[in-house]
Amino acid sequence: MSVDESRKVTIAAIARLAGVSVPTVSRVINGRSDVSPQTRERVEELLTRHGYRRRPASMRTSSGLIDLVFNDLDSPWAVEIIRGVEDVAHAAGIGTVVSAIHRRTASAKQWLDNMRSRATEGVIFVISTLEPPLQAELRRLNIPVVIVDPAGVPPQEAPTIGATNWAGSLRATEHLIGLGHRRIGFIAGPPQLMCSRARLDGYRTALETAGLSFDDDLVFQGDFYHESGFTGGSRLLQLPEPPTAIFASSDQMALGVYEAVRRAGLRVPDDVSVVGFDDLPEVRWSSPPLTTIRQPLAEMGMVAARTVLRLAQREKIESPRIELATELVVRDSTAPPRA
Amino acid sequence: MSVDESRKVTIAAIARLAGVSVPTVSRVINGRSDVSPQTRERVEELLTRHGYRRRPASMRTSSGLIDLVFNDLDSPWAVEIIRGVEDVAHAAGIGTVVSAIHRRTASAKQWLDNMRSRATEGVIFVISTLEPPLQAELRRLNIPVVIVDPAGVPPQEAPTIGATNWAGSLRATEHLIGLGHRRIGFIAGPPQLMCSRARLDGYRTALETAGLSFDDDLVFQGDFYHESGFTGGSRLLQLPEPPTAIFASSDQMALGVYEAVRRAGLRVPDDVSVVGFDDLPEVRWSSPPLTTIRQPLAEMGMVAARTVLRLAQREKIESPRIELATELVVRDSTAPPRA
Repeated sequence: MSVDESRKVTIAAIARLAGVSVPTVSRVINGRSDVSPQTRERVEELLTRHGYRRRPASMRTSSGLIDLVFNDLDSPWAVEIIRGVEDVAHAAGIGTVVSAIHRRTASAKQWLDNMRSRATEGVIFVISTLEPPLQAELRRLNIPVVIVDPAGVPPQEAPTIGATNWAGSLRATEHLIGLGHRRIGFIAGPPQLMCSRARLDGYRTALETAGLSFDDDLVFQGDFYHESGFTGGSRLLQLPEPPTAIFASSDQMALGVYEAVRRAGLRVPDDVSVVGFDDLPEVRWSSPPLTTIRQPLAEMGMVAARTVLRLAQREKIESPRIELATELVVRDSTAPPRA
Repeated sequence: MSVDESRKVTIAAIARLAGVSVPTVSRVINGRSDVSPQTRERVEELLTRHGYRRRPASMRTSSGLIDLVFNDLDSPWAVEIIRGVEDVAHAAGIGTVVSAIHRRTASAKQWLDNMRSRATEGVIFVISTLEPPLQAELRRLNIPVVIVDPAGVPPQEAPTIGATNWAGSLRATEHLIGLGHRRIGFIAGPPQLMCSRARLDGYRTALETAGLSFDDDLVFQGDFYHESGFTGGSRLLQLPEPPTAIFASSDQMALGVYEAVRRAGLRVPDDVSVVGFDDLPEVRWSSPPLTTIRQPLAEMGMVAARTVLRLAQREKIESPRIELATELVVRDSTAPPRA
């Protein structure tokens, strides 16, 4: 621990001398681009003059590990992200330590203890928000952090890797409009997540661009999980004038809509078209195979791994936020509405 | 490498002196129970007398890692096993390094290099067969190995953790017979895997116990993947006298049967009952939710992690093969046959 302690003191001293905050000094050390050139130069100069010790190179080399941390390992897209991260790390001769912190403070503390003992090169979180004590500790240890963000989190201190939620949602809605649908239901995700709002806005904009009016009755508030897709689908199908298509803004909710359609004695896509969002591996095997918006989860993991390895090498990264393109994948759950 | 070299020489020397093979000495060192008491005693005595150096304790402690290795990270049950292993390792303060070796020799070699550099405590393979060069190298490095085996592999040098395939299959078939089905189709897995044969035998025995005859026409040879379930389901439904229920011996094949039923203009379970095998997380969300045999994948991961950590501590384990119980999970895809 003595190495860490000495480093902490030094960073704090540099911050005082430079007249900036400790996080700003960390940003400079981590090669983050969101620091003004003047500040960067001043801090870099002080770091050099005061002989700030980076983590010893030998320690780095002997670790050969990055950490990939989930809240829970039960998310259906976890394995996709693991695959992408492992692919890049494996090729670089780096091991990927996968863990879950179970949203519990005690568990996060245990994780920190474990991680400290193995001198990780960097950490990739797949997590909606980093708890402040965890953030502070990682900053203190001067460990590069990247956040993979399929859910769309508010801006963080660390770089985030996401997908183009708004554009994907626009494309999904345009696809249904193109098939001739005029009454299109929408099942939204949790309103506190940025991606939920982006997806709702993409849907609304596609409707308005096509000259269709946005109808509150056709929007059901879900939470991305299966059950809310089932409930939302059931409600929408019971409307006096039900929609001919339902766009569920997550694949799990789309599969919930399937079940609502089945229980109503109807069929996908004959009676109701359904579109999802995510392209989880299993929706290729749903019956019928689901038309959906692909989030490039494995690729997001790959970019996250490259980014954290670059930060570990003190390279600068170009942007604190990277979004990869989403894509419409047309399968068998969408068709023109019944005449 | 010098430590490893010296250790190799010593093990070989001990083997010569004891008049046994090098693997036998490894087994004794790893606390395996499949060595005769006489041999164990002779080898242990020679190890002590010749001052055989185990891997240094300090190296052990500073590693704090186990390796979890898949052929590919695209298997639908990968995340379940990761979850189980991580749960136990996390609690023990051990990191879980997850990797895929992609069935390629070059990739396996890269993996070995990476793993050697991080001094892992032990390795859990989720893999049907270990290639002999990989086996030999792991033995040379004296690293404990455990195999998690949802597919049922032939006996290996390392301990394996599996599930009760035969009993699960028997139970699934009994469930369908209990509902009144008399013509029950079966979609088998690859015949070279032990678990495929165990599942076929469970099906056959349940039929015969109920006084029903085993009919070759009702058995389709699949490969555990979705497509073969679809093909098998389509063929079975086209028989002059089609089955009223189909037991697909993997969940992915069961979802393929769903699609065959849908394309035939029929419904599950009204026209055809379907049972799967695995209980992947997503089959709770299939439409209708799938009746299946649960393989306790997370629990298998937990037992594997406990076993490899015990081996790393040189504890003896009780059995070279552990099978955890499978269980019938009844959901909405099974019903009595139409009158």
